[in-house]
Amino acid sequence: MELMPNIDLNHPGQSAQTTASKPGHTALTLDEVHNLAYRVFTHLGLSAEHAQAIARVITAGERDECHSHGMYRVLSCARTLQHGAVVRDAIPIISDRGPGVVTVDAQRGFSQLAFEVGSKVLLEKVRTTGIAALAINNCYHFSALWPEIEALVEHGVAALAMTPSHSWVAPAGGSRPVFGTNPIAFGWPRVGSHPYIFDFATSAVARGEIELYQRSGRALPEGWGVDAEGLPSTDATTVLQQGAMLTFGGYKGSALSTMIELLAGPLIGDMTSAESLRIDDGAGATPCHGEIVIAFDPQFFSPGNFIEERQRAEKLFESITGQGARLPSQRRFIARSRSLANGYVQIPEPLLRDIQQLLN
Amino acid sequence: MELMPNIDLNHPGQSAQTTASKPGHTALTLDEVHNLAYRVFTHLGLSAEHAQAIARVITAGERDECHSHGMYRVLSCARTLQHGAVVRDAIPIISDRGPGVVTVDAQRGFSQLAFEVGSKVLLEKVRTTGIAALAINNCYHFSALWPEIEALVEHGVAALAMTPSHSWVAPAGGSRPVFGTNPIAFGWPRVGSHPYIFDFATSAVARGEIELYQRSGRALPEGWGVDAEGLPSTDATTVLQQGAMLTFGGYKGSALSTMIELLAGPLIGDMTSAESLRIDDGAGATPCHGEIVIAFDPQFFSPGNFIEERQRAEKLFESITGQGARLPSQRRFIARSRSLANGYVQIPEPLLRDIQQLLN
Repeated sequence: MELMPNIDLNHPGQSAQTTASKPGHTALTLDEVHNLAYRVFTHLGLSAEHAQAIARVITAGERDECHSHGMYRVLSCARTLQHGAVVRDAIPIISDRGPGVVTVDAQRGFSQLAFEVGSKVLLEKVRTTGIAALAINNCYHFSALWPEIEALVEHGVAALAMTPSHSWVAPAGGSRPVFGTNPIAFGWPRVGSHPYIFDFATSAVARGEIELYQRSGRALPEGWGVDAEGLPSTDATTVLQQGAMLTFGGYKGSALSTMIELLAGPLIGDMTSAESLRIDDGAGATPCHGEIVIAFDPQFFSPGNFIEERQRAEKLFESITGQGARLPSQRRFIARSRSLANGYVQIPEPLLRDIQQLLN
Repeated sequence: MELMPNIDLNHPGQSAQTTASKPGHTALTLDEVHNLAYRVFTHLGLSAEHAQAIARVITAGERDECHSHGMYRVLSCARTLQHGAVVRDAIPIISDRGPGVVTVDAQRGFSQLAFEVGSKVLLEKVRTTGIAALAINNCYHFSALWPEIEALVEHGVAALAMTPSHSWVAPAGGSRPVFGTNPIAFGWPRVGSHPYIFDFATSAVARGEIELYQRSGRALPEGWGVDAEGLPSTDATTVLQQGAMLTFGGYKGSALSTMIELLAGPLIGDMTSAESLRIDDGAGATPCHGEIVIAFDPQFFSPGNFIEERQRAEKLFESITGQGARLPSQRRFIARSRSLANGYVQIPEPLLRDIQQLLN
């Protein structure tokens, strides 16, 4: 538990609902967010350990105003639980596979608990070897990767994580889905500052984004998808149902997405995005697959003083922010400060009602 | 030496020049290519070990019709030698930094020899730990990364390599150069086939490509560069001299490029692209910096039989090629087959003359 990012739950226990809600929203403290998510998950039969682990990352998402990975995710988690394939009380099994490799079989449970137990071993290993990997197998994975990266980077290591998803994305030059939205995330421990963290899908955009265009009947921007012949398409329904989404960055993004399939699939003995979608069999559940996380302990790499090397990295960040460009997680950290200063977050009322209904 | 890709030098020693040259070109056997490059380098004072190592990757580039990394590179290598900063007889120093980490101080020599000695230790390490890293420090690096990746993957491991270069590329949302063209390369050992290999710059295009547009006075395509205010520019001179190049894939490519700076720079105690350009001080030499190479031994990761996992990877490749999309190195492997079947490659006569003049 202590490996998850510091959510800072130390603020007045009193409900913020009555005082601070903005129109159409209900203000909830982070405690309340966490407790509501926890209650829903345990009500739906999830074990306390899993419910706790998932409620933590959902609270972190809401705190950072990553709304799609905040309370909104309670709904898709619930769908996955109702679908039935996820094991509600799975106990992750750790295997020490070598000096630099630990694998965790999530036993078809959600990934968070598997990460929590596996990341402790990963950190022990990397302190001994300099570089180490954690592979999580057979997990249902729905969350962003940044909470995991952040949890590791807090311990002074650099970390890289990748996972496949469901095959919705065509390779460059193709027309049929092969890749998932395949996220990749990386983190670097900074001096006296939030860490440097990126976490992005290797698809041009999230599938949910295209679904929003479909609902509103708008044309997609170029470069998001192709039709069944592999020709550029701006029609959301065509892209979602007959053609395929595209990766970001053309053939380079396509190559990266292939690497993610390989390292977080066959390398670790787990499913590719195509296999995962086949297993889902139309249920629309959170993807079941593997994940790879690589950690680097800087103490082993730098011939000199790593304190100085960290200053060198700070100069790199300054050369980016000093010209008005943004670092990847900057908005998220600003939102975090705001949420922590306010002591509450704003949950849209319809979403809150949908979540509360899950308790009936 | 045995770690470098198999260049297959076993063909008739007889010169191909008289029989097979196409107009404006001279046909050379791969032996002749190798020997000419070797002679130029030793003539310019490079030690036999370095000359051999570099001639091998240049021959591999020419064989695969990667012309910019073939004989053409003899010229820029020679410029770097004449510039004087590169140490011609540097003896790489290996440091065993931990069970999973080996570093090689190239002692300001070219990178190839450092890779050859370091990669042997990397392979020993990864067979013991499951994941291991090689960091090369203080090297002059001019070659593509695929020959190194291919040399590792021949031993049944997956491998990932990254290096910074000279800071010519602005971060997304910026206007001033921070990143190098920062290449990333990855390889996966395939069953009964050439390996899966990609190797691409994280800049939108190579700097040389923009220089070609400048020479011919053509407008650049959108997305390659910005002016001094960070606004899109299609003027090659503006992009090269006042503004900056851009990364591929917008803010995602920019994030990846940042990761490469960090992992192949401060993590391993070596220079960022900005520092490397400062050291160059206008000489226009090959960049001096570090490189990181990560190897994965699949035997440690897969809970089951890795033979089956490799078949799973083959299905992924089939799902790409089966719909007419290309795998990244496919063209290169076809060119290789052609060169090996012919027994010779075609060198443009002006290039050959320029190279031969270096022997005077």
